[in-house]
Order: sequence, then structure tokens, then C-alpha cells
Amino acid sequence: MIRTRAAVAVAPGKPLEIMDVNLEGPKAGEVLVEIKATGLCHTDEFTRSGDDPEGIFPAILGHEGAGVVIEVGEGVTSLEVGDHVIPLYTPECRECEYCLNPKTNLCQSIRTTQGAGLLPDGTTRFSMLDGTPIHHYMGCSTFANHTVVPEIALAKVRKDAPFDKICYIGCGVTTGIGAVINTAKVEIGSTAIVFGLGGIGLNVIQGLRLAGADQIVGVDLNPGKVEMATHFGMTDFVNPAEVEGDLVAHLVELTGGGADYTFDATGNVQVMRTALEAAHKGWGESIIIGVAPAGAEISTRPFQLVTGRSWRGTAFGGASGRTDVPKIVDWYMDGKIEIDPMITHKLSLDEINHGFDLMHEGKSIRAVVEF
Amino acid sequence: MIRTRAAVAVAPGKPLEIMDVNLEGPKAGEVLVEIKATGLCHTDEFTRSGDDPEGIFPAILGHEGAGVVIEVGEGVTSLEVGDHVIPLYTPECRECEYCLNPKTNLCQSIRTTQGAGLLPDGTTRFSMLDGTPIHHYMGCSTFANHTVVPEIALAKVRKDAPFDKICYIGCGVTTGIGAVINTAKVEIGSTAIVFGLGGIGLNVIQGLRLAGADQIVGVDLNPGKVEMATHFGMTDFVNPAEVEGDLVAHLVELTGGGADYTFDATGNVQVMRTALEAAHKGWGESIIIGVAPAGAEISTRPFQLVTGRSWRGTAFGGASGRTDVPKIVDWYMDGKIEIDPMITHKLSLDEINHGFDLMHEGKSIRAVVEF
Repeated sequence: MIRTRAAVAVAPGKPLEIMDVNLEGPKAGEVLVEIKATGLCHTDEFTRSGDDPEGIFPAILGHEGAGVVIEVGEGVTSLEVGDHVIPLYTPECRECEYCLNPKTNLCQSIRTTQGAGLLPDGTTRFSMLDGTPIHHYMGCSTFANHTVVPEIALAKVRKDAPFDKICYIGCGVTTGIGAVINTAKVEIGSTAIVFGLGGIGLNVIQGLRLAGADQIVGVDLNPGKVEMATHFGMTDFVNPAEVEGDLVAHLVELTGGGADYTFDATGNVQVMRTALEAAHKGWGESIIIGVAPAGAEISTRPFQLVTGRSWRGTAFGGASGRTDVPKIVDWYMDGKIEIDPMITHKLSLDEINHGFDLMHEGKSIRAVVEF
Repeated sequence: MIRTRAAVAVAPGKPLEIMDVNLEGPKAGEVLVEIKATGLCHTDEFTRSGDDPEGIFPAILGHEGAGVVIEVGEGVTSLEVGDHVIPLYTPECRECEYCLNPKTNLCQSIRTTQGAGLLPDGTTRFSMLDGTPIHHYMGCSTFANHTVVPEIALAKVRKDAPFDKICYIGCGVTTGIGAVINTAKVEIGSTAIVFGLGGIGLNVIQGLRLAGADQIVGVDLNPGKVEMATHFGMTDFVNPAEVEGDLVAHLVELTGGGADYTFDATGNVQVMRTALEAAHKGWGESIIIGVAPAGAEISTRPFQLVTGRSWRGTAFGGASGRTDVPKIVDWYMDGKIEIDPMITHKLSLDEINHGFDLMHEGKSIRAVVEF
């Protein structure tokens, strides 16, 4: 048992509380990781706010981290002390029906316990100093200076990569770039529309640039996003507030009949419909990335699909984390993708609630907590 | 100008009227065809009934025919007098942006005029004996003993194939089998669910058998469909009226986690949702074939897509008609697929309205009019 510092979500809608917590050492198949940096993602805020109907409290949130292996549990063979790792909220056991099917990345081997805020043996490693158990979150709990993660949920990455940047590969970067590369499989010369130019949308844009797309249209209500999106590869910007008439018709016109690929990075179900309908007749594919509010539904006329559009979704960018995340770290280190300009704010753990304020104010792309 | 016999849709909701009509000869790029047989499809009835908001009257309906070339217009090079042909409501010009894109079969070269009930030059060839123009329908108008069709909308087929069977390849057979082979690209060993065991659903089932599917579940409220569906390859039957509890949960259980592929052949938007949600998490694809009522919308939670299901549609089974239809005729003649048991009724043109009665009563799979 060690004592570590963590930001604890004590109850729905409350600010996180920074406190010392107890952390048991790794059991069989588990790894103790010292978290060096963690990003703040909208999904953390979705749960913190109480909007997530599956939220469990108290819990240590955070799922976008990077750190160093401190101790390995019995039977761990793929990692050793000192390895640099990125925790994976979508694990990769390489043994389940899902891992063995090349069409999906949704490893199901520890899904039930992970969804219940527990490690695979059905217990938590975290507890308050009074002994009250604290739940894990998305199998990661990176809002703690130390955490315990199953071996199959850790990607081993090169040691020269900076934690404060590659932590973002644990969610946003991989989700955005992977949606393009793994899910849509965008071809060179394609046209695309990206709805929402936040932390995910920007990574979709740089994924499209990497994939060789010819036209990359960004759609956002905030013109303040233009400069950064252009930097990452956006070729055309559309502010729906400035479009006279029908937005779909405008986008179809702009893309010469609709885009080959459209991506929703907003989580708004109306935008998801617009994204589908702005895809090209005959072959356009629309990919849902954003997480919608509980109970919200998407809808359209089936004619949209019968005339050749496809409606799909992606989780963690279709990436198999242990395999793909180290490659994305390499791409960053090799300069094929950029992360630095997207890390707009650095915070200490004590300042973490300010990070959520920045998110709400639209001031940050990514705020990162460094330990 | 010739005089021919036709069933004319004079007004929405009225029975077809059998009458002699005038038919001008083929202009440049057009072909005069003597129709030998035509099937009656739900889409004809959708328009005849007045439910089709795009229906135009008076018109000669029918789009599932087979016949013989009587005369070719100027510039026609791929067909000659005496050739056996199947008219195509989805043409294949092999020159437009759509034909040159392997992801779609939706040739757009004559779409505007076809949708307006006209031939490509913007006029009709049919007229009443008093000179009133009669519109074409889906570019085919097979409810006439003779019709004029653009060269690019005629598939040339072998001469030993019986008209009264292969006419069905003009729509139902190709739509059902093509949805499996061209749109879903079902792999050997797949599991599948087919909703609706009518004329399209049965062809989906035999397409699945042809594609080597392991489990082919049929879903229909009418247990009278079981014998025929089993004959065509159905391995499991589910009657939603007999399922206690949630139908999706029952189908997911029956298919071991959801089907790899699901097909809606009902046109009911609630069934389309069930079909999507009964597809396997991670990789299940749901294909909409049925035509929904005007204004009806499909809906679901985006989570269904984010967790790996895809929602797609198909028109004319994704088939490029001039290329694919002759192959399907060969498959029929070679015994790879069956058609004969599905042609449950033969009628004369004078009896055509009775064919729609049979359709409504659920007594026919396909009624065919022979000239």
C-alpha cells in the first residue's frame, strides 16, 4: 500500500477534491504506474458534472495520461519497471473474440468490471484514508499521481517522448487521427468535412492531412478556431451562423456534391444528422465521434442511406491501443503529426478544477496536468 | 408510331386502366422493346396507390420486365434487333462520375428526366389515343406490351432464359441478392438476420446461402412464410409476435451476440431500428433495402454506431445493371439461384389489378404478367 495524491470526484456535479489516497500495489496481471501528465477531456467532465448516467462516485477520473512503470504484478511479462506507458481505456488483450476480429478494436475482456469502476478482480485499489473505496474510471484513473492498471491496458512507448505531450495520445489524438485512418480509411484525394474544431476535430483534421485529403472543410460556430484549424490542415471554414439558407445544401455545394467523408466531433445529434446528409450521395460515409447526451437520438430519412450514404461511429479512433499507440507516439516524435500547439494550458493537480473552467469557456484546446 | 396495349395509371389511387396507347419509335440512343413478361413490385403499388409523393400521372408503371429488342434508334451500338433484354431502372452509362466510382451503382446520367417520367430528351414516347402524353415510370414502363428505353438502361441477356422468370431479375432478385453480395459483401461463415420474408427478403436469403453464411435468421409476423424461406436457406425463424420480452435481446441471444449482417426488407422504420440494434457490437452492419413511407424517419442512439455498428442502404442491390444482370441470369440458368418457386401467380395484362389484390392479401410472392 502506498499513499498518493489524487483529484477525487466525490459526488456528481461537485468540484474534484484534491487529497491523499491509499493505493494498493498491483495484483496479478496489473501494473503500478506513476502518472507524469494527464489531459483533461470532455468525457471526464461529462462524468464529473453528473450528466453521465453511468457515472460512479467516489471515483478518480482521468483517462488521458502518460507515466512510468513503478512495479509489476505477478505474471506480467510485457512490461518492466522503468518502461514508459500510456494507459488505455480501450484495452487490447489480443485473445478475446473482439481482439481477434480485425473489424473492431473494442476488446471486451475486462469491460464489465471496467464499466463498474473496478479492476478485473472486481475490487478497487484506491481508497480514502478512512478506508472508503474509491472507484477507478475507464480503467485508467489518471487524475492521481499513481494508479494501478491491467497490463493489457497499457501501451509501452519510447522513453524519449515528453509525457506532457504524449499523454494526449491516450485519448484525443488517437481518437481523431484514428477515426480517419482506422475507421474511415480515407483515401488520398478525398474530400472531407469536420464538424467541431475542438481537441478531437483538430486531430481529425491533421489525420485527414496525413491521409492526403484534397479538401478539408471545418465547421464551427466559433471563428476563433480558424487559425489553429488552418494550421493543422483545414482548407475551408464554414460558420453555420453565417450561412444563409440550408447548411447541408451549402456544404454539398462547397464540396462538389457532398463530402466523401464527414466527421462529427461535437456530440450534438442535430449536427450528426447534418454530417450524414452532407456526405456524398452514392458513397459518402459519416463517422460519429462525439459522445451525445444521455438518451439523445439521431434520426434521418432512410432514403439518405438507400441512396448510398453510410452512418458509422468510432471509439478510440478504432485503434488497438497496445499496437497502434506506440506508432502514433513515433509519428509525433518524427514530426508527422503535431501535438504541441494543442496543449494550450499546463496546470498542477491542485489547479485541476480550473482546467474544467477553461474547457467550458472554450479557452483551452487541451489543458494538461503535470505531476 | 405504333399502337400497343398497356395498363395505365390514370390517377393516384385508381385501378390501372387497360387500354391501347400510342408509342413513338425510338429516338437516338433509345431502343424499342417488346415486353414479354413483367413482375408486379411493391414500388409500383406505392406509386399507383398515391402514397408516393413523387408519383406522376397518367403514367405506365412497371419496372421489372424482360423482352426482345424490336428496333434500335440512331447511334445504338450495344444492342440489335432480336436481342433479349431486361430494362434497368438504375441505368449504367459507364461514363458519369457515379459509374466511374466503384463504390456506387447509382448512375446519374439520366436521373433528372427519369424522375420526371420522361425519356432523356425531356419528352414521352407514350400517349393516349387522344394525344394526351403518358409518362414513363422509372425509365422502364413495363406494364405495356411495347416500351421505349434508353440503350444505357437495358441489360442484354442470353436468349435461352425464360422471360416469365428472368423478368424478376429486373428488380426483386437483383435487389435481394445484390444487397448481400455487392452492398454488404457478406463473407463465408457469417451470421445474418433478414427482416421481412417477402419477395425481397427471400432473395436476400438465397443471396446469403450463395455467400456461404452459416446462420440465416428470418423474421416475419406471418408463419406462412416459413416453408418457402426454409427452402431458400433460412436456418432459424423468429416470429416477433411470439417473442416474450425484447425482440432485439432475443435476436442478439439467438445469434451469439448479434448478427454480422442484418437486412431490412420491410420498409418499416421501426423494423429498421431493430435491424440495426440486432447487429453485432463492434462490426455488425445493417442494410436498409425497404422503401419507407414518405416522411418516415429512422432513429437510434448514436451509441449504437459508436460501438461499432454501421447503418447502410442499398438500391437495386448495388448492382451495375448492364454488367451484373446478365451474370445473375446465368446464375439462374446454371441453377446457382432459384426463381421459379417465387413466381406464385401468372396473370394476363387484363388481370393486372388482381395482382395488386394478391399482394395486399399476402397471397403472392411475385405475380407476373405475361403478354
